[in-house]
Amino acid sequence: MNLDRALDIARESRAQAEADYFDHLRIPSVSALSRHAGDCRRAAENLLGHFRRIGFEASLIEGDGHPTVRAEWMGAPGKPVLTIYGHYDVQPPDPIEQWVSPPFEPTVREGRVYARGAADSKGNHFACLKAAEYAMAAGGPAINLRFLVEGEEEGDSKVLPAFLEREGGSLKTDFLLIDDGSFATEGQPDLITGLRGIVYTEVEISGPVVDLHSGGFGGVAPNPFNTLGHVIAGLKGRDGRVTLPGFYDSVRKPSPEELASWQRLGITERSLLEEVGSPALEGELDYPLLERLWARPTLDVHGIRGGFTDEGTKTVIPATATAKISMRLVPDQEPGAIFASFAAHCRSLATPGTRVTVRQVGQPAPPVLCGTDHAGARAAAAAFEAVWGKPVSYLRSGGSIPVSVNFQRAIGAPMVITGFNQPGAGAHSPNEHMDLEYFHRGVDFMLRYMEELARL
Amino acid sequence: MNLDRALDIARESRAQAEADYFDHLRIPSVSALSRHAGDCRRAAENLLGHFRRIGFEASLIEGDGHPTVRAEWMGAPGKPVLTIYGHYDVQPPDPIEQWVSPPFEPTVREGRVYARGAADSKGNHFACLKAAEYAMAAGGPAINLRFLVEGEEEGDSKVLPAFLEREGGSLKTDFLLIDDGSFATEGQPDLITGLRGIVYTEVEISGPVVDLHSGGFGGVAPNPFNTLGHVIAGLKGRDGRVTLPGFYDSVRKPSPEELASWQRLGITERSLLEEVGSPALEGELDYPLLERLWARPTLDVHGIRGGFTDEGTKTVIPATATAKISMRLVPDQEPGAIFASFAAHCRSLATPGTRVTVRQVGQPAPPVLCGTDHAGARAAAAAFEAVWGKPVSYLRSGGSIPVSVNFQRAIGAPMVITGFNQPGAGAHSPNEHMDLEYFHRGVDFMLRYMEELARL
Repeated sequence: MNLDRALDIARESRAQAEADYFDHLRIPSVSALSRHAGDCRRAAENLLGHFRRIGFEASLIEGDGHPTVRAEWMGAPGKPVLTIYGHYDVQPPDPIEQWVSPPFEPTVREGRVYARGAADSKGNHFACLKAAEYAMAAGGPAINLRFLVEGEEEGDSKVLPAFLEREGGSLKTDFLLIDDGSFATEGQPDLITGLRGIVYTEVEISGPVVDLHSGGFGGVAPNPFNTLGHVIAGLKGRDGRVTLPGFYDSVRKPSPEELASWQRLGITERSLLEEVGSPALEGELDYPLLERLWARPTLDVHGIRGGFTDEGTKTVIPATATAKISMRLVPDQEPGAIFASFAAHCRSLATPGTRVTVRQVGQPAPPVLCGTDHAGARAAAAAFEAVWGKPVSYLRSGGSIPVSVNFQRAIGAPMVITGFNQPGAGAHSPNEHMDLEYFHRGVDFMLRYMEELARL
Repeated sequence: MNLDRALDIARESRAQAEADYFDHLRIPSVSALSRHAGDCRRAAENLLGHFRRIGFEASLIEGDGHPTVRAEWMGAPGKPVLTIYGHYDVQPPDPIEQWVSPPFEPTVREGRVYARGAADSKGNHFACLKAAEYAMAAGGPAINLRFLVEGEEEGDSKVLPAFLEREGGSLKTDFLLIDDGSFATEGQPDLITGLRGIVYTEVEISGPVVDLHSGGFGGVAPNPFNTLGHVIAGLKGRDGRVTLPGFYDSVRKPSPEELASWQRLGITERSLLEEVGSPALEGELDYPLLERLWARPTLDVHGIRGGFTDEGTKTVIPATATAKISMRLVPDQEPGAIFASFAAHCRSLATPGTRVTVRQVGQPAPPVLCGTDHAGARAAAAAFEAVWGKPVSYLRSGGSIPVSVNFQRAIGAPMVITGFNQPGAGAHSPNEHMDLEYFHRGVDFMLRYMEELARL
């Protein structure tokens, strides 16, 4: 591949690349909602068509869920194999009414495309796909390429983990790129060296066998919502400290070097507060900001089902209240032990008139650390520096990419976790968007990254 | 009116009475939901048609809400005027999936009709309407009758209170019957001597300006749902005691005679527990059961809006969480003072990163006491005893009938609060039902009650 030629093609093809990317964004591939299963398959088939058109061998990996797209080009014998991970599924768009333009009608305002999935994570893998296309047009990539783009990252990944468990050992892979991150600061490329894990639960409190009239029974009937208040208050204090027994016992402190490097990132209380928009930040105020985000575990309630939430008044003592609660985990917390302690603690917090059921939703993910001292990371750092004109920074992410654990276990190749979109992209929020300049630089990065890996 | 003749007509007309009553139940007159506004009007017009057909002068009182049906027969000059209050509106039917038969398709099983509103309160005023019909057919009632049947009791009454304030002073009324109660024990008629009041609120906690990704922000962003847990837990203890400052200061202890009479009712922990179906009862365990239900104030959470409650996982820190919370009040608590204390206490319980907005929903209602030592109550007691063969018991209700306060203020006539349906009717619950024998005995009671009042 001639790098300059490929970069020229990329520059000349920007309009077409955006058109193809926007078509991908129009598909509402919301994996968590079963009514969108057909849309998930359409998104997979859309990618399949693109990969075949540019000369890759591509197929769908089927299983108990949304299919994973597998696409390969092995035309550089003797050169390393890079496996690129992405996901074509997206978060639900709620609350819909807060979107300025509809979530599945990509709309460009001030050089940014607004659509659910624009940043998380269709923009990322689509930039890689376009880089592959231009590399093919400029003589073929200098290394071998394999894409695995799944459709279950936002929910409960089953198909890709099962495939990796089944065939991971026979997938020749020298380098792994997990392309599902994000820039943490404007114009500053970064590599992610660690991810928090997650345990996602539903806590169901049941009291009366049926919904009761609060006039007729208030004062004697247990109210699952009032009890849930005690459970939630008993899980995390006002000081942001999780009060599960033993919760922090196996938390590993980041190294002084790592903490010092985070300090240099220039992420301040003020910049975060601006993004959050609340009167103040919360959490464990006695820990530095980035340690709280990346190296401290947390507990958040996401919503509560049951009772009456419509307009007007209904004086009901509801039969059940169900809270969705998740915990973000850090090394060396173990999801199974944390869940067991959580379930027992929830039960201990209930009132005598209620029953508590605690279940896990989706696949738990242990935390991940992936290091920076390997050839894959060095090549990525060089490529980013060439595109953005400054050295990468090394940081962690507070989010989870559960499948990275499956990759580590099944393949074990040096792993790079990164992403191409600007900070504040609104992943999981209304008005998610991708800066198109970042998208195109993502393409350029991939072209250079392939060259760097070929030199090793 | 010939009482025996009227009772004969009632017996012969049972099938037709049920058919008319069931047609009334088919109208989904859910006042709290604006999409049912047309159905509320249909229910009012249905009653209007019945009253006109039997020879009453009837009209709709219009105003800022669902209309009130006004129907009068003043054909007994010199005799007392009885004003009968009822409401044709019903609670929302949720949770719909727990109904054995559809809520607006009345279905008879084992002598009971199942439908939303069958007991609360269409069965009550429909029995009164049928009694009026039979009295007209048997020579005309021995007293003058006025019906005021509103359509906003389950929500926020506006039309009838405004009418009472405007014209209550000129409504000649000697006796008031608030027909919106229920039997508390099987086969045992009762008169209600007191009602709890209510203040219904929404507590909105807001944190981030938009929904955030809990991976990206967990550990620094305030979570309104976690804060709401602290607010709810801080409003009522595990011991069922409301922890608002001053909440119990003006609670008046029932008289020793009243407490003793409640003891004789035979309502036990076991019978209530069976109805509630929970592992145990809760509340202020150091107070007797019926005092907790009728003479102690309470606080209940009805539902919480916001965040993600659909299937699957969404890792969101929601921008807002809104809880519906009401308090039942007893003499001499004052709704305005209680609300002010509640709002201040909620604000004091919030965490630093959140803002709290507390608003009232609907019209607050002060508690009501109406006494038993007056002619109206004695006449009702005699009529009940004739129908059911046993003396009435005197009790209170834990629920609120806000309009009874408006009646007391505007008209001031001696008030009787009662109802015809069996205990355990499922008002506000799925599978609400009315025992048809109770319905027909309600008709007989009304025929006898009119006679008793005529004798005074």
